Amino acid sequence: MLFTAQVKVMPLKDLLDPQGKAVLGGLQLLGFNQVHDVRIGKFIELHIEANNKEAAFQLASEAAKKFLANQVMEVFEVNIF
Amino acid sequence: MLFTAQVKVMPLKDLLDPQGKAVLGGLQLLGFNQVHDVRIGKFIELHIEANNKEAAFQLASEAAKKFLANQVMEVFEVNIF
Repeated sequence: MLFTAQVKVMPLKDLLDPQGKAVLGGLQLLGFNQVHDVRIGKFIELHIEANNKEAAFQLASEAAKKFLANQVMEVFEVNIF
Repeated sequence: MLFTAQVKVMPLKDLLDPQGKAVLGGLQLLGFNQVHDVRIGKFIELHIEANNKEAAFQLASEAAKKFLANQVMEVFEVNIF
């Protein structure tokens, strides 16, 4: 069966996010003054061939740990559909 | 009230996603042969000061249209929490 895994990778809460800070600056220049904070991460969609949802989850989590996310600086979250 | 807006920006389905293709190649080199397709987008979290959820949604959608997403190449989706 074909599953879709969505892996969300975000910078750790306590780390500075320079890309987010830059976008926050841009938004404020455009007049979006109600925006107080911006954090930017990656959203990765994988199509996985697996026997069941559990196996797809395991595979996506392993891929995220080994390759998609840098756990020193980022946290990830996996959802299977 | 402070709301969190999550804006997911993905490349359009019909467009080539070179970043996704590169990651797919990397995953296959690592032995993740069950992965058939990868698409990579951005996940942007905004903290917005607004009177209600509806206003926060409007603001985040406008920011996405004007600045966060390039609608020629990308689609976006806004969720408010």
